Amino acid sequence: MNERILIFDTTLRDGEQSPGASLNVFEKLEIARQLAALKVDVIEAGFPVSSPAQFEAVQRIANESEVIIAGLARAKEVDIKSAFEALRNAKSPRIHTFSSTSDIHILGKFGDSKYGITLEEKRKTVLKMSYDSVAYAKTFVKDVEFSAEDAGRTDIGYLADIIETAIEAGATTVNIPDTTGYNFPSEFGNKIAELKKRVKNIDKAIISVHCHNDLGLAVANSISAIQNGARQVECTINGIGERAGNASLEEIVMALKVRKDIVNYFTNVNYSEIYNTSKMVSGFTGIVVQPNKAIVGENAFAHESGIHQDGMLKDRQTYEIMTPESVGVGKTKIVLGRHSGRHGLKIRLKELGYQITEEELQKAYDAFLELADKKKEVFDDDLRVLMGDEIYKEEELYELEYMHVNAGTKTVPTATVRIKTGENVIQESSTGDGPVDAVFNAIERALDIKPTVESYSVRSVTSGRQALGESIIRIRSGENSFTGRGTSTDIIEASAKAYLQAINQFNVYCNTKVEINENGISIK
Amino acid sequence: MNERILIFDTTLRDGEQSPGASLNVFEKLEIARQLAALKVDVIEAGFPVSSPAQFEAVQRIANESEVIIAGLARAKEVDIKSAFEALRNAKSPRIHTFSSTSDIHILGKFGDSKYGITLEEKRKTVLKMSYDSVAYAKTFVKDVEFSAEDAGRTDIGYLADIIETAIEAGATTVNIPDTTGYNFPSEFGNKIAELKKRVKNIDKAIISVHCHNDLGLAVANSISAIQNGARQVECTINGIGERAGNASLEEIVMALKVRKDIVNYFTNVNYSEIYNTSKMVSGFTGIVVQPNKAIVGENAFAHESGIHQDGMLKDRQTYEIMTPESVGVGKTKIVLGRHSGRHGLKIRLKELGYQITEEELQKAYDAFLELADKKKEVFDDDLRVLMGDEIYKEEELYELEYMHVNAGTKTVPTATVRIKTGENVIQESSTGDGPVDAVFNAIERALDIKPTVESYSVRSVTSGRQALGESIIRIRSGENSFTGRGTSTDIIEASAKAYLQAINQFNVYCNTKVEINENGISIK
Repeated sequence: MNERILIFDTTLRDGEQSPGASLNVFEKLEIARQLAALKVDVIEAGFPVSSPAQFEAVQRIANESEVIIAGLARAKEVDIKSAFEALRNAKSPRIHTFSSTSDIHILGKFGDSKYGITLEEKRKTVLKMSYDSVAYAKTFVKDVEFSAEDAGRTDIGYLADIIETAIEAGATTVNIPDTTGYNFPSEFGNKIAELKKRVKNIDKAIISVHCHNDLGLAVANSISAIQNGARQVECTINGIGERAGNASLEEIVMALKVRKDIVNYFTNVNYSEIYNTSKMVSGFTGIVVQPNKAIVGENAFAHESGIHQDGMLKDRQTYEIMTPESVGVGKTKIVLGRHSGRHGLKIRLKELGYQITEEELQKAYDAFLELADKKKEVFDDDLRVLMGDEIYKEEELYELEYMHVNAGTKTVPTATVRIKTGENVIQESSTGDGPVDAVFNAIERALDIKPTVESYSVRSVTSGRQALGESIIRIRSGENSFTGRGTSTDIIEASAKAYLQAINQFNVYCNTKVEINENGISIK
Repeated sequence: MNERILIFDTTLRDGEQSPGASLNVFEKLEIARQLAALKVDVIEAGFPVSSPAQFEAVQRIANESEVIIAGLARAKEVDIKSAFEALRNAKSPRIHTFSSTSDIHILGKFGDSKYGITLEEKRKTVLKMSYDSVAYAKTFVKDVEFSAEDAGRTDIGYLADIIETAIEAGATTVNIPDTTGYNFPSEFGNKIAELKKRVKNIDKAIISVHCHNDLGLAVANSISAIQNGARQVECTINGIGERAGNASLEEIVMALKVRKDIVNYFTNVNYSEIYNTSKMVSGFTGIVVQPNKAIVGENAFAHESGIHQDGMLKDRQTYEIMTPESVGVGKTKIVLGRHSGRHGLKIRLKELGYQITEEELQKAYDAFLELADKKKEVFDDDLRVLMGDEIYKEEELYELEYMHVNAGTKTVPTATVRIKTGENVIQESSTGDGPVDAVFNAIERALDIKPTVESYSVRSVTSGRQALGESIIRIRSGENSFTGRGTSTDIIEASAKAYLQAINQFNVYCNTKVEINENGISIK
């Protein structure tokens, strides 16, 4: 018996909840297209009611995708309505609603006496809310998923009751999340087996699992759940997500593939797009993949010791249980240059997973020519950075027109900037502790602002001495933080661009107005 | 029954086999001291016969440590002899010898007909070699560990035979490595259980496991093995190691701690030193820890979504199964500055795990004062970088005396450097694609060399706008590569220092002579 496992990708929802990983709507659209090329079964595109940007992203993805698109909603009418509004034009919409079911969560979140006085009463309230929310979602769409939040720490008897109730109300998928990454594989597998036994209508729904990685066990827990009856796994590219993240999509699907000798399950995933997808997500979110990350880390297929290298030369299988090519690493080695032309660029971008419009191609080509002037050889990674940095940038209030720095071991670092805003040009200079600090000071003087810099990072994103440098900066204002990203062959220029982009994000936020009305959310 | 699990840390051996992770002897000593503070049971300090640097590191760690120190050796007399020479003065020496046992490995590594014609004959040869090598090691030390390389893919019958043979020959620990990270947890657990059943002298040795993370299952496999009888786990800090790395020490020990409600095992590890150790290893090796890494990632205890933040305010347990403080995150928030003084610095460094001599303290204090001039507030991470960059630097042939760059959006990047070597000073300038490229070109002109730059990376290692930037560069000459690292508040200066350090490493290598003689290895 060879059974299909559905892959529910939540990179755009749980993954985007990683601190510092905010994606704009263009980046989300591009990732959704790449997830479709990867052939995942469900894309959870966001949590529509939570913000106008979330709503818009879910809506735009739903409008164009052929894949099942899920929108998250708490067990509240306003959430479910908003999710439906965002998904209205989806070919295959799914509303994903959830309630907290563990005692810790119920007591923590439903402490108010209006939910009942005793735990028993509160549990009953949650049970009813779950039924009602699934039933309400069902009035909009056929495909409704219900999640029992913190199922990993929920009493099995109550969990069975609530799952049975959700299925009665019409849930077609029931999800068992190990929200805090608490379970051991054997324990979690037993939980799934027990639910199959206890829940009498369980064959009317697909069992799903959603595992977090707090103890490093998310992938093992997902596989154990599959071996015990789960037929959908929720996961993210590169394992990003809240805290230590979610189960890694790439690890789960490759584990099932590599070990098909002992487990008879298959997914529909197009393995050779794994690497492209990983690179795109890392590029857009700015969340680095550590070199020793399984499947997609820089060293995942690198052999360092003499003994290993010797063995590999004799027989690759000695130290390799899958080939890098099978996940799309190093598929092709085409290097572009100044004379590659617009068509060559378009084809290469498509191979890397970027499906762009003619207008976007023009922007990409201009940026490409500018880069090719600085670097003779433009590698895949350069193109990925260029796409992340240049193409999906929203229109900006402030633009860096000119920058100059003077720095060295015996020089007081000094920077001059010229910033364009509409018709105006502002020019300023400043010193600093280093060239980057000097540039930041000059920008602040020019714009007469002093934001709190929450984090600042630089890294080289491509290899070689002419590497592109990327800078990511996060500034904070009250409860909100805003991220900017910039790249350049000059790391100082990259930092200046990133800082301005963060300031621009802040300005966009300040000028956005949101209303919830009869038709869901309207954004101005 | 509450049983103790021995923690065998192989950060300095398998971990150091991570591409790009080469550590100098001072860094290894410092890590070994920190591993002792973390209270691991065994430190595998290296593979003495493989290089003079490895030999020296094992020897120096063995000379000073109270912990069991293991040295790796193939099933060859020269390896075992060399391991013993390195461990001669250890308080508790362990020789760790290994043979390949899977058919793939045997056929790949023992292809020559001198090992036998048929697989059956070759297997017999390996069995005899294993016996002989353990018996030979036993003539030097009482504590001998034997590993069956690629046990994860070895026929269980042959594996049982070879383990029994190794114990007969005197092995006190028998290690079952899943060398290629191929096993599933239930499968690997069954393997351990089966060995306990089949190997008649198994109670005369401790069963150890060594799991790799190619499918993301290393931690789960280690735990499953423990549940089935393993009493030693081999692991590394941050899960570094060959390819996708080894099982993470921090994940295994915290999983056992957090879930002591369902598993009755304990380790001797001092949990509150986990974070310090992770930071030190990441700092010295230059291998980044991804933000979503369990236990030690930057986001491991961060809560992003509104729902999660809300829950956390009501009750931390809602989304947290362990506290960050329990692993030493944010234990103290002391910020040093110019006036903190030498004593203040020494105390803080000690709290961060650095046990330094008075001479090292003087170097550290000078570097600290220089840094405090540039940055008003010196954070823990700044100190960690300073220790990695300044204190353990070996004497250098070339030193950067002066550097100046001129760069900007409309400037041809130009750099001037002055390099000191002995009594001489060389001065040169050059242009480049960016400021870093210009500096590299100037250095090459000054020294009249043109090394192959294999990889170049920059990152900010501390937070805030005055972050310290770190640059790591790897150059290649024939089969060898040399790594340099540099830090500064000016990322360009950091890059120049890193480049010079790599060049210096290369020169050290060229001037080193090695001999194997009666007393092991001698290095000149």
